[in-house]
Amino acid sequence: MKGAVLYGPNDIRVEDLDDPRMIEPTDAILRLAASCICGSDLWPYRGLQPIDGPTHMGHEYCGIVEEVGSAVKSIKPGQFVVGSFATSDNTCPHCRYGYQSACVHREFMLRAQAPFLRVPHADGTLVPTPGGTPSPGLVPSLLAASDVLGTGWFAADAANVNPGGTVVVVGDGAVGLLGVLSAKQMGAGRIIAMSRHEKRQKLAREFGATDIVTERGDEGVARIRELTKGIGADSVLECVGTQESMMQAIHATRPGGYVSFVGVPHGVDLDGQRLFFTHVHLHGGPAPVRRFLPRLIDLILNGTIDPGKVFDLALPLDQVAEGYRAMDERRAIKTLLQV
Amino acid sequence: MKGAVLYGPNDIRVEDLDDPRMIEPTDAILRLAASCICGSDLWPYRGLQPIDGPTHMGHEYCGIVEEVGSAVKSIKPGQFVVGSFATSDNTCPHCRYGYQSACVHREFMLRAQAPFLRVPHADGTLVPTPGGTPSPGLVPSLLAASDVLGTGWFAADAANVNPGGTVVVVGDGAVGLLGVLSAKQMGAGRIIAMSRHEKRQKLAREFGATDIVTERGDEGVARIRELTKGIGADSVLECVGTQESMMQAIHATRPGGYVSFVGVPHGVDLDGQRLFFTHVHLHGGPAPVRRFLPRLIDLILNGTIDPGKVFDLALPLDQVAEGYRAMDERRAIKTLLQV
Repeated sequence: MKGAVLYGPNDIRVEDLDDPRMIEPTDAILRLAASCICGSDLWPYRGLQPIDGPTHMGHEYCGIVEEVGSAVKSIKPGQFVVGSFATSDNTCPHCRYGYQSACVHREFMLRAQAPFLRVPHADGTLVPTPGGTPSPGLVPSLLAASDVLGTGWFAADAANVNPGGTVVVVGDGAVGLLGVLSAKQMGAGRIIAMSRHEKRQKLAREFGATDIVTERGDEGVARIRELTKGIGADSVLECVGTQESMMQAIHATRPGGYVSFVGVPHGVDLDGQRLFFTHVHLHGGPAPVRRFLPRLIDLILNGTIDPGKVFDLALPLDQVAEGYRAMDERRAIKTLLQV
Repeated sequence: MKGAVLYGPNDIRVEDLDDPRMIEPTDAILRLAASCICGSDLWPYRGLQPIDGPTHMGHEYCGIVEEVGSAVKSIKPGQFVVGSFATSDNTCPHCRYGYQSACVHREFMLRAQAPFLRVPHADGTLVPTPGGTPSPGLVPSLLAASDVLGTGWFAADAANVNPGGTVVVVGDGAVGLLGVLSAKQMGAGRIIAMSRHEKRQKLAREFGATDIVTERGDEGVARIRELTKGIGADSVLECVGTQESMMQAIHATRPGGYVSFVGVPHGVDLDGQRLFFTHVHLHGGPAPVRRFLPRLIDLILNGTIDPGKVFDLALPLDQVAEGYRAMDERRAIKTLLQV
């Protein structure tokens, strides 16, 4: 099969790879309906995260089960399934507490920018769509559930979004935009999206943003203070992962408010004493997407949400390099790969 | 009147000071029933926190109202009152959210190691004891409510202590010990106190600790993992404020668990990426003691709790220097000052 391999900064290639094979009896092999490029793929693509030689890329996926191992009980060949970017047995203590992305058997998926994929711990990782194979029009949204929607949802959940609350979303990537959608679903009264990009602002509004703030850093914080009568927001979703975005999020929050952070922080350093006097709640980490998947799949299948709108570019796998470039240059919000 | 003044490292003196006078119409003047020395007073006493010239000390207090300003409505002369170390109007948005220690009118109290004290924003800061002046035997416990008990309670509250949960308390100072007491009141199933000091271990057990861990740092974390079957604790109360204690707290917590930090951090620096992968909830800051005071006063008056036990040394104000020394050398847990 063909698959995407990163060789170094700005050097992503499609190569002939071996088809994945069963390794453990708890594995499943999927034929993917589609794959995509994640904002987090841009860190190594940009050379901002070291790679150890040529690296298979892709961790978002949905598709048809081709084969399952002898120990797999609930997942069957022929089912359409969505899985998380982090595998989980869904039975260990961390999983039972709802932190499947901290499962004792966690592996971060790789190799999903390809037509076939081996998924470890199939029973605990994959969720079949009720009612059989969904219509092709739903594939982008189901694919989004695998990471960006699940992560945006976790961002809203971890920031304690409540009915009527004032929410700020820092970051207008696909995760931030789906954080807006998630906050809307959780009943937020006001959703302020921080974005200076017209197309993304438009989608943010479509997903439920009530206000757009274009300022950043201290100016952005000042604007949020202004919009919240000097109080600060109840819930702030940090969906970028830089020092600036993190401090922007923390300082936009009212004392006793909640900050979530869901993108892997790069170069972020928090001064304990400064954090102390802000009085914020802070929670984040790799999103436990598996916790939310059944609900997200339902919301997609019954037409309540359409997170697939974050895909504003679709390319055949062969053109994966253009897909990365378009996202790197912010021409595309998110690239879907036809595999 | 006499009052304690810090001149520099290890140099605390009792001096003749002017009696406090009303400044604002929202002020009250109290005649203190007692005062005390706080673990946080040791930072400047040890020279680990700079002072800007001779500094009046003391921020914990309870006593009889002598005089109130013309704008004070609910507090009356003759009442016995307990106040927080942080003043609050108790009406601003932050106060209404329960973060009175982030009140827009917050001042951190000083000058309480003295017989008389001016308290700004008397109506929002002070809580009268129901049933008039309490018996002298209750004064130490009511005095504790002013800061160390209120802070220990906040530590347990911010660490989301729940019935049946497993709690770790890092720090065996008065706040840590009262964190144990608070966790017990909130129904914790297991309370692990980290202490290597026999007298404090004994008091921790009296307050409700079920286990004592004497190891620190990585060894301490390993021991907590052992005691929790490798999972980590649900709630960890960080009651010290150093880098070591903070990392110990974070790494003793299970993914999705809660860490509170209630002592002003000194030299604490959190790596964003490391924090991210721990999956903990983090919350702290100066304790909003005012939120908890009515309940804490009730629990003391009805004999449910006896937090005054943390005072294992009582000295006349004249001997304040010995009081500081005893705490600095860990001969005393907490010194009560007879003023």
